[in-house]
Amino acid sequence: MDIAAFYELVEKNHSFMIASHVAPDGDSIGSVLALTLALLKLGKKAVPVINDNIPKKYRFLPGSNFIIKETSEKYDVLIALDCGDIERLGFNRPLKEYGTIVVNIDHHKSNIYFGDLNLVDSSASSVGEIIYRLLDGKVEIDFDIALNIFTSIITDTGSIRYSNTTPASLKILAKLVDKGVRPDYVSRQVFERRSLASILLLKSVLNTLEFSADGKIASLFITKDMLKAADADEEDADGIINYAREIEGVEVAVLFKEYEDGLTKVGFRSNEWVDVSMLAAEFNGGGHPRAAGCQIKLPLEETKEIVLNAVKLAILEDTGERCN
Amino acid sequence: MDIAAFYELVEKNHSFMIASHVAPDGDSIGSVLALTLALLKLGKKAVPVINDNIPKKYRFLPGSNFIIKETSEKYDVLIALDCGDIERLGFNRPLKEYGTIVVNIDHHKSNIYFGDLNLVDSSASSVGEIIYRLLDGKVEIDFDIALNIFTSIITDTGSIRYSNTTPASLKILAKLVDKGVRPDYVSRQVFERRSLASILLLKSVLNTLEFSADGKIASLFITKDMLKAADADEEDADGIINYAREIEGVEVAVLFKEYEDGLTKVGFRSNEWVDVSMLAAEFNGGGHPRAAGCQIKLPLEETKEIVLNAVKLAILEDTGERCN
Repeated sequence: MDIAAFYELVEKNHSFMIASHVAPDGDSIGSVLALTLALLKLGKKAVPVINDNIPKKYRFLPGSNFIIKETSEKYDVLIALDCGDIERLGFNRPLKEYGTIVVNIDHHKSNIYFGDLNLVDSSASSVGEIIYRLLDGKVEIDFDIALNIFTSIITDTGSIRYSNTTPASLKILAKLVDKGVRPDYVSRQVFERRSLASILLLKSVLNTLEFSADGKIASLFITKDMLKAADADEEDADGIINYAREIEGVEVAVLFKEYEDGLTKVGFRSNEWVDVSMLAAEFNGGGHPRAAGCQIKLPLEETKEIVLNAVKLAILEDTGERCN
Repeated sequence: MDIAAFYELVEKNHSFMIASHVAPDGDSIGSVLALTLALLKLGKKAVPVINDNIPKKYRFLPGSNFIIKETSEKYDVLIALDCGDIERLGFNRPLKEYGTIVVNIDHHKSNIYFGDLNLVDSSASSVGEIIYRLLDGKVEIDFDIALNIFTSIITDTGSIRYSNTTPASLKILAKLVDKGVRPDYVSRQVFERRSLASILLLKSVLNTLEFSADGKIASLFITKDMLKAADADEEDADGIINYAREIEGVEVAVLFKEYEDGLTKVGFRSNEWVDVSMLAAEFNGGGHPRAAGCQIKLPLEETKEIVLNAVKLAILEDTGERCN
């Protein structure tokens, strides 16, 4: 789908559901809201849908109060953003029951082109960046839209620290700041709001730090009891995995989170050369080469052993040491 | 001094000492090296001088091996970068003994115009940004120069998280990435290299967290014993103050570091409205409105009491609560 096809679709249809994935992040929320606000400007009916709770830190985003969970109403068009596959939406019925036409706009390499129309650009830092290019010169990018897209880009690039930061994304950020977005304000909302609970949790999680593979793998874990003791929720654990990733000499960081019913969630990050999306895929998870995750239906200790063995193997394979 | 005057100076002189402040940071080192490399390209003799140790994390910067400490040799021109006043250079003799002409290039509002020629632009995010504008279109900004300027800008803007991030600085970053700079690589060097010692130190420093003024002030401290126990040095404490600043509701964060001889160093950060450069100035220190520091010739406990009282007063003054 090119830009002309997108505006043809917009012209021919009236009602739009703009949806994104469960476990929402800055890019899913920011891009959903930016596109919703733009379609409203064009006189369309547009509803932002995310079938999960919106983290507190994103509630400053203009339009975030309009976000609803799954709805039984059917729309002319369902636009799915930032979803590599249909399951990511967390919807309970087939997509065609939400929209007569399904549009898939995404930047994941692994995208399976599930839409009637697909716009997948894995060179884009974020879906927010794709939305900017869709709107640029067609819809006035006002302050509210700018703020949402800015948030998309800086969250998905980790404040321009990740390898997906390109000249194009930086130029868009410059234009959005020109629209009045204050980078320091946005950063304080999304990166720099620590709850006291998160500090207490951090202290206890750092006590779980373990190394393997000559210091190339660092792992941390969080038990249900640790969350309880710090009066913390899952949001308070955001970013903790980076403490492991950033230690000198570490290539892969793994964070294990103990869940109810013997389930363990696993987060992976890598620095230079291990493709952790492949690792996550071994356990039916997915993600990007430098950030991925999976869930395993085993208790924490067993999950740790199985996953860390797989990571060790991946490290050996990638360094070619296995051949020696 | 405008750009034409700068190139007239360059044309008329042969040897240049490019110097910056003690306790060097990414902007001082990056801008010194960028300007040194540019002058070398123009066929000049150019020596980078910083009268202090260069932190390990900046040693990836091209040219960093050429940096020397104070030298007795005299140059045609001494260019001081990122120094609001002469003392910041940490030199032992009058500036005129280092350079016949003294040039002062800086972005601190508080700059006292100590040079024969002065280029002070407090709207610039960093001195690196000023150097970019000086070189742009005049000297080829090659990869090595680009890497130094990129590092200047991202360190002084906290990876575009601080209020000095402007459209102009973002556009320059875009151009530098176009020159081949890899944002993720630079970020890993300057922001994301944690030593194991820094993690151990972090755990113990988080235990010292205290609040006052209804949670608007958060303070932390580091004793000599804590550094020893974690096998940490001063570099390992970099950024720890932000754990206090980023807690919800906090306006001013203060970090106290115990030194030899009953000396205590104090770092200040603020979020929205308290000008901590004024606070630091009360104790003969200085800095920016959102980041400043001072040294006090008193033991840790006494320093804490005196400084925290001053911060409380500043909070009361700024909220106008004092009038009630």
